[in-house]
Amino acid sequence: MNKVRLGIIGIGNMGSGHVESILDGKVPEIELAAVADLRESRRQWAEETLPENVKIFETAEELLDYSDMDAVLVAIPHYDHPKYVMEALKRGFHAMCEKPAGVYTKQVREMNEEAAKHDLVFGMMFNQRTNHIYRKMHELVNGGQYGAIKRVNWIITDWYRTQAYYNSGGWRATWDGEGGGVLLNQCPHNLDLIQWICGMPKSVQAFCHEGKWHDIEVEDDVTAYLEYPNGATGVFVTTTGDAPGTNRFEVDLEKAKIVCENEEIKVYELDVNEREYCYTATEGFKKPEGSWIDVETDGENLQHVGVLRAFAGAILRGEPLIAGGEEGINGLTLSNAMHLSSWLKRPVEIPFDEELFLEELNKKRAASRKKEHVNEITFNTKGSYGSGKA
Amino acid sequence: MNKVRLGIIGIGNMGSGHVESILDGKVPEIELAAVADLRESRRQWAEETLPENVKIFETAEELLDYSDMDAVLVAIPHYDHPKYVMEALKRGFHAMCEKPAGVYTKQVREMNEEAAKHDLVFGMMFNQRTNHIYRKMHELVNGGQYGAIKRVNWIITDWYRTQAYYNSGGWRATWDGEGGGVLLNQCPHNLDLIQWICGMPKSVQAFCHEGKWHDIEVEDDVTAYLEYPNGATGVFVTTTGDAPGTNRFEVDLEKAKIVCENEEIKVYELDVNEREYCYTATEGFKKPEGSWIDVETDGENLQHVGVLRAFAGAILRGEPLIAGGEEGINGLTLSNAMHLSSWLKRPVEIPFDEELFLEELNKKRAASRKKEHVNEITFNTKGSYGSGKA
Repeated sequence: MNKVRLGIIGIGNMGSGHVESILDGKVPEIELAAVADLRESRRQWAEETLPENVKIFETAEELLDYSDMDAVLVAIPHYDHPKYVMEALKRGFHAMCEKPAGVYTKQVREMNEEAAKHDLVFGMMFNQRTNHIYRKMHELVNGGQYGAIKRVNWIITDWYRTQAYYNSGGWRATWDGEGGGVLLNQCPHNLDLIQWICGMPKSVQAFCHEGKWHDIEVEDDVTAYLEYPNGATGVFVTTTGDAPGTNRFEVDLEKAKIVCENEEIKVYELDVNEREYCYTATEGFKKPEGSWIDVETDGENLQHVGVLRAFAGAILRGEPLIAGGEEGINGLTLSNAMHLSSWLKRPVEIPFDEELFLEELNKKRAASRKKEHVNEITFNTKGSYGSGKA
Repeated sequence: MNKVRLGIIGIGNMGSGHVESILDGKVPEIELAAVADLRESRRQWAEETLPENVKIFETAEELLDYSDMDAVLVAIPHYDHPKYVMEALKRGFHAMCEKPAGVYTKQVREMNEEAAKHDLVFGMMFNQRTNHIYRKMHELVNGGQYGAIKRVNWIITDWYRTQAYYNSGGWRATWDGEGGGVLLNQCPHNLDLIQWICGMPKSVQAFCHEGKWHDIEVEDDVTAYLEYPNGATGVFVTTTGDAPGTNRFEVDLEKAKIVCENEEIKVYELDVNEREYCYTATEGFKKPEGSWIDVETDGENLQHVGVLRAFAGAILRGEPLIAGGEEGINGLTLSNAMHLSSWLKRPVEIPFDEELFLEELNKKRAASRKKEHVNEITFNTKGSYGSGKA
């Protein structure tokens, strides 16, 4: 095999972006084999846009029955991610899953169990892990030279969306169609990154506000308080209602403070470990000495293209993925824990009761209101995923 | 009267700072009349340092019986602030109260009621209100041109203190001596400023950690979530355990984002009100246009000296105070609400049940442990109050 022949299920905002990257030759080792979309308008777009040798199907099932492919990318509404990833794997296709891995961890756990049975490549579309800024954060925090984490604070409020965005799809921002709001749609990246860089918290208390800034039934404003196993605390704030919004990620460690904002990382390095200084200093008001140091990154930020290239490399030559599919459950665990905590108005320990979460989610789904004023649009999302931003 | 003759009760860290400002001629309209301190070592310092005509007393009562004074400044451990302010007012002295106004709002309410009976000047030592940065924040947020507040986020973690600081006084950082930790000692400034600039929240849920970074029984790490009457939300994070710490205060409004960090204010001004844009824009991923604007301040930051000068001006010529004494209850209300919320592990509505707070505080006081290893020191606190810092 020289090239990976890929089928894409769902050619909405995300799927059509991947189609374009492949047609533009940005992922040389991937060849588009087939696409599927339930919507007539999207299939028409495909007929007008795609080379003749690319098969166009209506349903995911039809696409999965097509055998002249090596891999499948699932880019449909979140609830069905695990289902079609599992179907693809069962048919012997490698699988790439759009984020989030699913809507509830129970279904994602099943997907991971299925994946473990196959010797196939399974990846998650965590494109922000390709960002040099976050890769450097991961390296700095996990390198060990700065000791344990003491505090985490991520204000990630630059996911602005208008009401028109929410009106652009019937499934969007509904409990029954999407299973959540900003936590499920925009934040999977950040929830993956915060756990990738800082590890998983042991408990979460979140305050989710539904329809605070938009006419939607799901949350568009979240403040979450986190507690880590080592006693460190954290805050995660997000919304789709702030303009211009902020993306400021601070991690305080025993020997350094790391702040990532405006596409740069600043590191204040202490000369001594603060934990030792605290108990040995004789002055009451002094601080341990230190200084701001320069941080260099490789500047590379390949985003979705990087994830797809690595996916091809993994299939063709066993190279590492950007993010393994089985890692998708971590960020979703955070998201589910935040929702559950907010619904129950109490802190939630991780791991939480997955059945209880599903029960509560299903109550929300049962009460989900049918959207009015839907104006189906596929937006060009270029530059809308914080791709160049830290 | 040309000059205000001032008596200072308590010449520890704060009181001796005021003494020095006055002796250095920085407050030309105030003359030091008397000081009082229970500690032999501090009276000895006074004997060695003060001009002969300044009376030195052991107890507050002795000082208050001295009649050749116009005003009294109370700078003793927090519990007794209201008591001696009330005693001073009853004797016809103008009064300046060190922060916090007291330890629990019930006692501060009594102090305010007493003050209302007298035609005397009553001020609070909220020296950070003199800071040009915070005055400008107050002006920008309350000027009306940017619409309603949507989000508040203050990470104020640059109150670093060593264990030696906590070992320097028996009353310090105990429930019985001080009535709290970072919220009662370091944060009264910030809690006053956040309410002065953003108004009072309607509810608070806080996560206070006691002795997390130091060997003390009170809180030295706090994360609080706030909800405002108009639906805006907020986060307030503080600690004495982070080095170098952060002081970043962000306020998001309908027409602007204001960020105050590193002694400067940055304002991003939107061309339109985001609330209107959200519902009228036809694009899903676009944001309202805007730009960063220059903000100029008068650069003045007189701190304690500014508060004392204004106090003298208020007594001599009826000029405005920096902060009226009766305003001290607001920041303390926030502090008490945060403590109560953390103790009860639930959100606390404001106004809260003051009797319940006192009951819970008294449980803490009853279980307060006697400090060992106390090494009484009076520190020179110059430059330790974030005086030049935003």
